[in-house]
Amino acid sequence: MITVREAEHIINQHSITLESESVSIDQAGGRILKEPIRADRDFPPFDRVTMDGIALKYEGAEKSGSRFKIAGVQAAGSPPFNLTVHGEAIEVMTGAVLPGGSDTVVPYELITIDQTPEKTATLQTTPEKGQNVHKKGSDRLQGEVIVTAGAILGPPEIGIAATVGMARLQVIKPPAVAIISTGDELVPVDRTPLPHQIRSSNAATLAQALDQWHIKAEQFHIVDDLQGTTGKLEELLQSFQVLVMSGGVSKGKFDYVPQALEQLGVKKHFHRIRQRPGKPFWFGSHPSGILVFAFPGNPVSSFMCFNRYLKPWLNKQMGIPATDFQAMLAEDVNFAPDLTYLAQVKISMDLGVALAHPVEGHGSGDLANLVDADGFMELPQGKDQFLAGSLYTVYPYRNLRF
Amino acid sequence: MITVREAEHIINQHSITLESESVSIDQAGGRILKEPIRADRDFPPFDRVTMDGIALKYEGAEKSGSRFKIAGVQAAGSPPFNLTVHGEAIEVMTGAVLPGGSDTVVPYELITIDQTPEKTATLQTTPEKGQNVHKKGSDRLQGEVIVTAGAILGPPEIGIAATVGMARLQVIKPPAVAIISTGDELVPVDRTPLPHQIRSSNAATLAQALDQWHIKAEQFHIVDDLQGTTGKLEELLQSFQVLVMSGGVSKGKFDYVPQALEQLGVKKHFHRIRQRPGKPFWFGSHPSGILVFAFPGNPVSSFMCFNRYLKPWLNKQMGIPATDFQAMLAEDVNFAPDLTYLAQVKISMDLGVALAHPVEGHGSGDLANLVDADGFMELPQGKDQFLAGSLYTVYPYRNLRF
Repeated sequence: MITVREAEHIINQHSITLESESVSIDQAGGRILKEPIRADRDFPPFDRVTMDGIALKYEGAEKSGSRFKIAGVQAAGSPPFNLTVHGEAIEVMTGAVLPGGSDTVVPYELITIDQTPEKTATLQTTPEKGQNVHKKGSDRLQGEVIVTAGAILGPPEIGIAATVGMARLQVIKPPAVAIISTGDELVPVDRTPLPHQIRSSNAATLAQALDQWHIKAEQFHIVDDLQGTTGKLEELLQSFQVLVMSGGVSKGKFDYVPQALEQLGVKKHFHRIRQRPGKPFWFGSHPSGILVFAFPGNPVSSFMCFNRYLKPWLNKQMGIPATDFQAMLAEDVNFAPDLTYLAQVKISMDLGVALAHPVEGHGSGDLANLVDADGFMELPQGKDQFLAGSLYTVYPYRNLRF
Repeated sequence: MITVREAEHIINQHSITLESESVSIDQAGGRILKEPIRADRDFPPFDRVTMDGIALKYEGAEKSGSRFKIAGVQAAGSPPFNLTVHGEAIEVMTGAVLPGGSDTVVPYELITIDQTPEKTATLQTTPEKGQNVHKKGSDRLQGEVIVTAGAILGPPEIGIAATVGMARLQVIKPPAVAIISTGDELVPVDRTPLPHQIRSSNAATLAQALDQWHIKAEQFHIVDDLQGTTGKLEELLQSFQVLVMSGGVSKGKFDYVPQALEQLGVKKHFHRIRQRPGKPFWFGSHPSGILVFAFPGNPVSSFMCFNRYLKPWLNKQMGIPATDFQAMLAEDVNFAPDLTYLAQVKISMDLGVALAHPVEGHGSGDLANLVDADGFMELPQGKDQFLAGSLYTVYPYRNLRF
C-alpha cells in the first residue's frame, strides 16, 4: 500500500493531450480559454464621456460662474463635434466621444442652463481639468492581453470577448471519458430492484461531477465475469482517453477488474492506498496513453477518490491552477487507524473564516450522508487526534456559492 | 435617492411565481429541486456486507482460532444463503446480502483458509459481534426525506435520485427573462465598430451570469428613441416575467427608458441609489406582475447591480437560502463620497480566512478590470476609511472553486 501523497504523485506523472475546439460565445460559459483574449483596440477606444453634461476646454473655464454658449449636442454613438470657438461648449451624453477641442466634462448637476437670449450654461463650481473623461487607452492598450489562456470563461470574460468581437472562442476540448460501473447487484435507475439488488448510482454521481468540466461522459455497466469484463474493457480502450471505473477492485472472489485490465496491457501503477474511505483504488495506464482510474464501488469511496485524485488531475490537464483550500476544524476528530482519513465535512463561512464541521455517516456505503456535507477534509496519517481550531486541506465537492 | 438597504428592501417586496417542470436525471444537474426526495426503501435495503470475507454467527465464534466449514459463496447481487448448521460459515462479498442466520463478517485479512480435507476458515482474531455489517435502515428509513425541496442538485443528490429510482425529477422552471441593451453607440459582436462606436457587451455578460440558474435569457437591443423604446418594451412586457435592462436610465437627453416604462404603466419603485458604481439603477413593476430591473449602461455598474440586487432576489425566488459571505479587507480603502461603495475585490483563502484584495480600476467603464476581480465588497455609506482587517460582506461573481 502507498500513501495518499505517493498516489497523488504517481497520478500527476501521467497526462493526456487535450485538443482545442471553437465554440460560439453564447456556448462558451464555463469553458477553459485556449488562447488569450487581446484588446482589438485601445480600451476605451476613444476619450469617452462618463457623465451627462457639457464638454468644454478647461483653459478659460477654471472658475465657477464661467458662462458658455451651447453649440450642439453630442450623443453616444455619433461622430464627434469639434469645439473651435472660444467660450462655447457641447452638451455631451455618457458614452459619447469627447468633442474635439474639449478636455473636461461638467455634469448637469453642476451647471445652470439658460435658454435666452441663446442657450448657455453657467458653471456652479470650479471644474478640475480632465474630469469625467475616461481617456483613450487608459484601461488597456491595443494588443494587450486582457484574459489569459487557461482562464475559466465567466460573465466578465464573456463580456470582454464580446467587446473585442470574438463571436467564437477557442476553448479546450474536454477529454473523452467513459464511466464504467461494475457489480451484479446493480440495476438501472428505471428498474425496480429485487430485495438483494440496488440501483446503480455511482455512475450518475460521477457523470454529474464531470459535467463541471463540460465532460459529457458515456456510461457503461459490466457484470462480474472475467470474460465479459475483459471484452468490454478492450472495446472501451479503443475509444476513450480516460476510463473511470467503480467497483470490482477489492479482495472479493468476483473482483475481476485488476486482472482484466492487466490482461489487456494496462500497467498497474498502484493498487490500494493507506486511506479511508477508498483504500482499494487501482490506477493504471495503457501503452496508448489511456488512463484508468478504477475506484472502489462504495458510493462514498468512489466519490471521495474522484474529488481527491481525479479532480485536481483534471484541473491540471485543463491548465487550471492548483489551489489549496484550507479550513478550520470546528470540532475535535478522533481517528485511530493508521490511515489518512478523508472526513466528510460541511463548510460554513463564519466572520470570514472557513469552518469545517464533521458530518459523520455510517461508513463508505452511506450515500445519503454525502448530501449533508460539502467536501472531504484530509486528516493525515500518523495522528489519531485532530483538534478543533486546526487547519487542514479540504476537497470540496460543491461550489461555494453565496 | 435611497440607500442600498432601502433598495434591497423594496426589491424584496416583489416576487414572481415560478412553475415546476420535469427533467430527466441526466439533465437535472444544477437545477433546484421542487419536491423532496424520499427513501423508496430502507437505506441500506438489507443487512449489507461491507468487507470481503466470511459471514458467521457470532455466538460460538467469540474467540481467535475458531474454525468454520465454508458452506458456500454469497456474491453481491445474489439472493441470500441461509446459515443453519452450527460451525459453518459462508464466504461473502462486499455489497452482498448478509446470509440468514449470520450476524458478523470476518474479512479475508483476518482468517486463514484450508482446502483439505474440506474447505475451512480459521479466525486469527476475536471478532466483534455485528462487525462489517451495514444494518438495514441504519442510514435512512423508508419514506424519510433525504434531499429537501429547494436543494441545488449536485453530484450527491443526483446519486440519491438514481438510487431511489427517480429517472425524472421535478425542478423549478427558471423565469422567462429578457435582457435589453440600449444605446446608439453599440454594435453587435460580429460587426466592426466605427471609431465612435463600441460593441455591445453587457447583454452577453448578463446572459452568461443568468445561466447559473439555467435561465436562458433572450437578448434584445433598442435604440435611443422614445417611440422605438416604448414600442419594443410594450411587446416584451407581453412575453417575459423579468426585464433586465442596461443603459438609458441616467440624466442624458436620450435616456428614454424611465419615461417609456412609465408610459407603459410600469410603476417606478425607485430610481437612483446612494451607491458607486450603479447610482442610476431604476426599478419598477407592471400591474401584470412583470418586474423591470433597469441598470445603468456602464459595464461595471450593470454587473454590480446584477450581483448586488438581482442575484440575491433570484436566489430568493428559487428558494435558495440567503447567505452572508463576509471577507476580511486585506488593505485599507479610502472612499470619500457619501455613498455606499461596492469595491471590486479579488478573494483569496489564506489559512482558512477569506481575504478581499481591492482591485482598483478606472471607474465604471473599466470592463477589463472585472476580469481581475472576483466580486464586489460592500463598504457602507457613512465612513470614508475602511481598515485592513475589517470584515465586510462580499457579493462574489465567481464560484469559489478550488
